Amino acid sequence: MATKIAINGAAGRMGRCLIQAVDQTDGLELSAAIDRADSSLLGADAGELAGVGKLGVAITADVAQATKDSDIIIDFTLPEVTMALLPHCVANHCRPVIGTTGFDDAQKQTIDEAAKQVAVILAPNMSVGVNLSLKLLDIAARVLGDDVDIEIVEAHHRHKVDAPSGTALRMGEVVADALGRDLKQCAVYGREGRTGERDRDTIGFATLRAGDIVGDHTVMFAAEGERVEITHKASSRMTFAFGAMRASAWLMQHKNGLFDMQDVLGL
Amino acid sequence: MATKIAINGAAGRMGRCLIQAVDQTDGLELSAAIDRADSSLLGADAGELAGVGKLGVAITADVAQATKDSDIIIDFTLPEVTMALLPHCVANHCRPVIGTTGFDDAQKQTIDEAAKQVAVILAPNMSVGVNLSLKLLDIAARVLGDDVDIEIVEAHHRHKVDAPSGTALRMGEVVADALGRDLKQCAVYGREGRTGERDRDTIGFATLRAGDIVGDHTVMFAAEGERVEITHKASSRMTFAFGAMRASAWLMQHKNGLFDMQDVLGL
Amino acid sequence: MATKIAINGAAGRMGRCLIQAVDQTDGLELSAAIDRADSSLLGADAGELAGVGKLGVAITADVAQATKDSDIIIDFTLPEVTMALLPHCVANHCRPVIGTTGFDDAQKQTIDEAAKQVAVILAPNMSVGVNLSLKLLDIAARVLGDDVDIEIVEAHHRHKVDAPSGTALRMGEVVADALGRDLKQCAVYGREGRTGERDRDTIGFATLRAGDIVGDHTVMFAAEGERVEITHKASSRMTFAFGAMRASAWLMQHKNGLFDMQDVLGL
Amino acid sequence: MATKIAINGAAGRMGRCLIQAVDQTDGLELSAAIDRADSSLLGADAGELAGVGKLGVAITADVAQATKDSDIIIDFTLPEVTMALLPHCVANHCRPVIGTTGFDDAQKQTIDEAAKQVAVILAPNMSVGVNLSLKLLDIAARVLGDDVDIEIVEAHHRHKVDAPSGTALRMGEVVADALGRDLKQCAVYGREGRTGERDRDTIGFATLRAGDIVGDHTVMFAAEGERVEITHKASSRMTFAFGAMRASAWLMQHKNGLFDMQDVLGL
Repeated sequence: MATKIAINGAAGRMGRCLIQAVDQTDGLELSAAIDRADSSLLGADAGELAGVGKLGVAITADVAQATKDSDIIIDFTLPEVTMALLPHCVANHCRPVIGTTGFDDAQKQTIDEAAKQVAVILAPNMSVGVNLSLKLLDIAARVLGDDVDIEIVEAHHRHKVDAPSGTALRMGEVVADALGRDLKQCAVYGREGRTGERDRDTIGFATLRAGDIVGDHTVMFAAEGERVEITHKASSRMTFAFGAMRASAWLMQHKNGLFDMQDVLGL
Repeated sequence: MATKIAINGAAGRMGRCLIQAVDQTDGLELSAAIDRADSSLLGADAGELAGVGKLGVAITADVAQATKDSDIIIDFTLPEVTMALLPHCVANHCRPVIGTTGFDDAQKQTIDEAAKQVAVILAPNMSVGVNLSLKLLDIAARVLGDDVDIEIVEAHHRHKVDAPSGTALRMGEVVADALGRDLKQCAVYGREGRTGERDRDTIGFATLRAGDIVGDHTVMFAAEGERVEITHKASSRMTFAFGAMRASAWLMQHKNGLFDMQDVLGL
Repeated sequence: MATKIAINGAAGRMGRCLIQAVDQTDGLELSAAIDRADSSLLGADAGELAGVGKLGVAITADVAQATKDSDIIIDFTLPEVTMALLPHCVANHCRPVIGTTGFDDAQKQTIDEAAKQVAVILAPNMSVGVNLSLKLLDIAARVLGDDVDIEIVEAHHRHKVDAPSGTALRMGEVVADALGRDLKQCAVYGREGRTGERDRDTIGFATLRAGDIVGDHTVMFAAEGERVEITHKASSRMTFAFGAMRASAWLMQHKNGLFDMQDVLGL
Repeated sequence: MATKIAINGAAGRMGRCLIQAVDQTDGLELSAAIDRADSSLLGADAGELAGVGKLGVAITADVAQATKDSDIIIDFTLPEVTMALLPHCVANHCRPVIGTTGFDDAQKQTIDEAAKQVAVILAPNMSVGVNLSLKLLDIAARVLGDDVDIEIVEAHHRHKVDAPSGTALRMGEVVADALGRDLKQCAVYGREGRTGERDRDTIGFATLRAGDIVGDHTVMFAAEGERVEITHKASSRMTFAFGAMRASAWLMQHKNGLFDMQDVLGL
């Protein structure tokens, strides 16, 4: 029997991706699609809204009924929306898979409490590929050691307001840790003018901002005579949506407890 | 005290790279540089020949003296040249690091015999990056499993006569093994016309032949929403030369025995 | 005063992209959004549907009123839908910008007839970048001539059923024409086994099918010592949507006549 | 009859590349190979030194004889070496193709004077691909205008002491000029911290320093929905050597006059 999946924030961009992902994943079926009470889209077919054809599930604002009808509820919304959702999850034993970010300490404690009664996944980045890449970077850095120059190049869309990306910095930390370096000491964020020869102990970051690039990251390990590069390219929110599917299927084996993406992937 | 390195075939293209690599590696020093008895370059300074400035070592044809004067001799030549070298290695306990390819079974047995008396490394591909990449591919394939399409792209210079490259096929085997597939059954070497939708179980190869490309390989794992790519780019024979340096330094801890690059790298 | 734009097929995937593009383009405003009479989305706000917030334009099935209210109607639909649209365009002098493909000869003649009374753009590929790339390829091929090896690499999503892509073949034709070659004679679509050295007169195609890649094309010109590469990467239907915006703005200077994308870009 | 080519500085790294290029170019033959009077390589066969097999031309220090025996002399050396060469060129009407850089004004005037009597090419960068790329960038910038974000990424080996490269800055100038921008005002050389959204009028530079990368440059033009990229990759000094061959063949049609690479390529 298929696992029944509710989507919170179903009419938003991420919500529509989640509906598509459920539709494409064997063993999962859409049981409810929730949006704000004042949306003009209430009553529309969730599948048509997501561009996958009629699914027979109308957009609703009734969270209580949705959690009753579902095994799992996936939530990529806002902290206050997640907080309003949790009591229904506990009351109806509907496991939440949470990709929402920005929780404060009190909110995190509320999630901890809920996890004593219902299994919860809390993961700020559900991408399988990013989590895998971090593992590969650790191995590569340990084998190549100080015989290589390390450069991290990332590219994102023009609307991104910070640089380098959080993921690029995380990659830098993994590599620095593997080599016994302190990223704060060895990171170089730009080069201009008379820089002199490269210092091998540095880790260089190059940041591109252009067009609608969803998110590209490459870590280059360059020796004399050869290079190894590990690249991750996100092409759409579907990467997070499919990570949420993998997390949802995995979570059904647990009744309660708080888990993250590392648990799901066994990395 | 520096480890003393002899180079066999020192005036060839690979030999010159090996001289450069010795010159650039701490803890190693050039003790002898051997070439054919009829070379017009006998007597020339090995460093000048290799473009690194005078090193005070003249090109010689005297293998007996060279092995007496050295701890290690590096040999990227031809099978018959290696065979002529081995008795001198044993007699003078000069450890051979052999990158020569194309030995027949009798020649391999001769190497086995020599290895009982002197430590030998025999490695058809001494590139550190290629060996590392194969390990990363195995891990990536196991984590991503059947949720991704796998494509292998390789590019080599216009003079290469076979396709895909041996390294590309090796990468395909590693990935196929990790996924329980048979590469012979699932490899696709070209696409033309009405191919239909991609079958997930296939592994695609794309082969470029152009200009002077030394050797680029990329394995792409593509899901809906994201891609992970592992890339190796060789830029010169220096990749093999530096692998030989790493092998030479490692070999000094052994008196006898036959080893390969996996032993050197501890992969 | 802003140019008033109607979108035909507004609830489809391309229709939603067109709504976003109108919303982001200075000098254009959405005046009507048309979908099928049996759609569950009639009455929904076109902006909310497209994910850009309320625009105050409801999805309608009334083509007559929509063409009355608009200067331009953009149509990426199906041939029969376009045919049904044309009489309204002529009657209300609403200029059609047509990205629909697959017209038969009789239908093309109907478009020709309409274009005598109202200005029409008919363009099977409205991407500005693709059209520019073809021009750059022609120049590069003429300068580099027979001193380079030419390879064309393209990658598309797993659902694409033909190979190489129409755009890749078009690129090959442009390059072959510039060099006085016949693409049918010189194209190579795959390499396997003992191929021998590369023949300079060939043009190689390498085709990748993986994940959700929208469409990448690279043409490599490789000499001994250097490479020039010209790359086009489509990331979303927005490339066609913004091409349609540029076409729409340009078309307002014409009362009648049939035009294509080369006219719009002045290439 | 083949054009007879002398190489000045034949035993240096660039000199060896020039010997290889002559050997590979139809219509050209090596007539002389000159090196310093104190070189240990005098008398060695130029072809063996360059790794292309015996050519029957010994390394010599006799410039007078070499210019008598040759139609063209190619010179990638040092300003003072070029100055010593010029009188022999004039006396023996041997046309110099000069890739040497760093001439002062007095030296340039000496070259001007010589060019009245013998045809001269003076070109600080003889790469065909770089010159072509600059032309393509100009066209792309004019067509795409202010609808795109422009980013320039360059990568060079770890020993390069300035950033961005002269070629990257030249590319930036070409693009800025085409768009009526002042590169000094709009260049961004690094991004770190809270940068805010990208300003469309900027041109971003990203600089990588790693391993032995000879020189890669990519200019990205990124719109919503698509990207066009123009890439140049140098893989060896052979790019300059082959540019010198093209220049040498072209120069034979002139008796005197001073020319540059733009003249040779007709760009």
